Amino acid sequence: MPVNLSAPDAAALLAIPGVELGAAYAGIRKAPRADLMLMRLCQGARTAGVFTRNSFAAAPVQVCREVLAAGGPVRALVVNAGNANCGTGKAGLEAARRSCDAVARLLGCDAREVLPFSTGVILEPLPVELIESTLPACVSSLAAGNWGTAAEAIMTTDTVAKACSRSLEIAGRRISVTGMAKGVGMLAPNMATMLTFIATDACVGPGALQTMVREVADVSFNRVTVDGDTSTNDSFILVATGQAGNAEIAGSAAEYEMLRSAIAQVAVHLAQSIARDGEGATKFITVEVCGARDEAEAVRVARGIAQSPLVKTAFFASDPNLGRLLMAIGNAGIDGLDIARVNLWLGDVRVIDAGGRAASYSEEEGARVMKSAEITVRVDLGRGAAQTTVWTCDFSYDYVKINAEYRT
Amino acid sequence: MPVNLSAPDAAALLAIPGVELGAAYAGIRKAPRADLMLMRLCQGARTAGVFTRNSFAAAPVQVCREVLAAGGPVRALVVNAGNANCGTGKAGLEAARRSCDAVARLLGCDAREVLPFSTGVILEPLPVELIESTLPACVSSLAAGNWGTAAEAIMTTDTVAKACSRSLEIAGRRISVTGMAKGVGMLAPNMATMLTFIATDACVGPGALQTMVREVADVSFNRVTVDGDTSTNDSFILVATGQAGNAEIAGSAAEYEMLRSAIAQVAVHLAQSIARDGEGATKFITVEVCGARDEAEAVRVARGIAQSPLVKTAFFASDPNLGRLLMAIGNAGIDGLDIARVNLWLGDVRVIDAGGRAASYSEEEGARVMKSAEITVRVDLGRGAAQTTVWTCDFSYDYVKINAEYRT
Repeated sequence: MPVNLSAPDAAALLAIPGVELGAAYAGIRKAPRADLMLMRLCQGARTAGVFTRNSFAAAPVQVCREVLAAGGPVRALVVNAGNANCGTGKAGLEAARRSCDAVARLLGCDAREVLPFSTGVILEPLPVELIESTLPACVSSLAAGNWGTAAEAIMTTDTVAKACSRSLEIAGRRISVTGMAKGVGMLAPNMATMLTFIATDACVGPGALQTMVREVADVSFNRVTVDGDTSTNDSFILVATGQAGNAEIAGSAAEYEMLRSAIAQVAVHLAQSIARDGEGATKFITVEVCGARDEAEAVRVARGIAQSPLVKTAFFASDPNLGRLLMAIGNAGIDGLDIARVNLWLGDVRVIDAGGRAASYSEEEGARVMKSAEITVRVDLGRGAAQTTVWTCDFSYDYVKINAEYRT
Repeated sequence: MPVNLSAPDAAALLAIPGVELGAAYAGIRKAPRADLMLMRLCQGARTAGVFTRNSFAAAPVQVCREVLAAGGPVRALVVNAGNANCGTGKAGLEAARRSCDAVARLLGCDAREVLPFSTGVILEPLPVELIESTLPACVSSLAAGNWGTAAEAIMTTDTVAKACSRSLEIAGRRISVTGMAKGVGMLAPNMATMLTFIATDACVGPGALQTMVREVADVSFNRVTVDGDTSTNDSFILVATGQAGNAEIAGSAAEYEMLRSAIAQVAVHLAQSIARDGEGATKFITVEVCGARDEAEAVRVARGIAQSPLVKTAFFASDPNLGRLLMAIGNAGIDGLDIARVNLWLGDVRVIDAGGRAASYSEEEGARVMKSAEITVRVDLGRGAAQTTVWTCDFSYDYVKINAEYRT
């Protein structure tokens, strides 16, 4: 059960002029639920992306990188759930390209204008013929209002679809932003989450769009972790269709900040949704670290806490076994950390005062906070002005169950 | 249930001339089982140690570092289980020193000749008065044949005691080595395991002993991981009593290699015992990585596999979901890894051939190996001659259960 998260109201998701979506069941995943999604983009749309840093980047990630590096237009995205097409060698690359070919034939564009995405089991051959035979059904269902259906079609072990919208006004023009994401396990994105697609009808310059996708990833998907395992298929794609009629936004403009802020809001909501729906999650944990020398140091401590199995099982048990937080901070490898300057709060309760247990701390107060479904851990390292926030979930029996039984 | 590991036969543990051990129940841990251990060393014994790299090193670790840095003799070690005396500030340091004072009074030595050790819950005040009142019982039980009892007295969530012996001959003198260890969770030692004490009656020069303790830690405790969480209390102490009558061993001597090899055998056995008894373990996993550019790179890949929750839950489920091994290799952050040169075997089954699934691989073969209680994963990175081995266990429901219920 996701923590304080329900499926999005499909009617509240804003259509993005220039983007149409379709979905169908290809039979790649066993559960008979749509597992193939097609997104068609209008002429003139611009696309930027960031991808996993895992060395075993999946075949579709390799194809996406080639397409985006070539700098040509992108007219469609094709996404399958149930098979990651990773560790599949040359046959996997060929399968990814064949799915692009099939899309190109149906939409009348070039195969080098199609981005492929896959998510699911690694090391299994992708049954591309199922994609080829099901794509016509996706094409016939293409519609601008399909964000809800599309978000469902990219799910794997997700229990609810993840999508949301924001709108803003730039120079008198109404701009819409809608995004969707999937991913609840093998999740510690490094430059992107498993699969996220955000589109806006704003007109954005190509350089500015690429900068924006990185900046947004850094404050959203790169700050969420479920199990510390970075996926082979992480992809975050940002599309700007240019249909809103605004003047092209450059990286230095005030409008850039406005649009980036709206897109970051969508991305942060999706990133938090991922942790709320983390495999087996019963709690949503926010880890705030301040007083660091630089942001990298703050991130190291925050991730150290958010990824420690011992910290996460204590949250699951609602057990204020808070020494484990100390252990995790101490393991972050911060050179010359003066533990006498470290302070820590659990929700509104002071736990660590100058490196030791706070005199005011009581087990009852700690237990009270640990019972909440949403918990904030705040650490002050007392050595600088940099800070960060990372979101995660607890570690339950169900995490083991879900991952022990994933393929069976 | 530990994997192919039973409690040591106490009668088979070799007494080390110059070392006496005693144990008693102080009431620090709830279960009424000996939780206080005292080890007395003869005059002239030399001691060296390595300790955790966690910034929140526990109070006893801080005291041990001071004592060993001063370079004076060590005449006794005092160890309590049930409380880690960590995150306890000045009061914790004072409690550690008071336990040394009490030992010194009883044994007629200086308090600066006593090393204190603690293991158990972090962030709780150490009830040092229980140690003071129970130490006389430890003293009255001191005997050279007590290695088995002593190994039991330092256990926390361990399900069996861990101890073993080796003997060798150096220049016509029979030399004995006996060691004990504890630790099954919060376990990813970095320079040492939670608590390990190894003693030999050989005579070893002080510099050679310090070199040896580091070298042995590097090939044993630094290669085992249960959950990736490095403890605040890790300590590995090597004692050479000099009672065997051999000529003092220097770092460059052939005798050094002979003795180090015997001590490393004891240490590797203890390190493997820790993984076999890892919290919730149902399988013992050996991860061998070869073809690395340097050892650090090999260790990064091996640890990446051994610490991935997704890899470990797949082992628990006996599910050959081997794409997760690829994911873990890819996440090790190896710069410029050419995945087309990566090969991987599970036991005797070739899984990955040149970065993709081996043509000869079948799910049935994978499943057959995954069912074993002892599994070896072998990875060839194909980029150099360095290699390493890391030991770990799987990740089961019981790991979550043990750690969710640890204090309740």
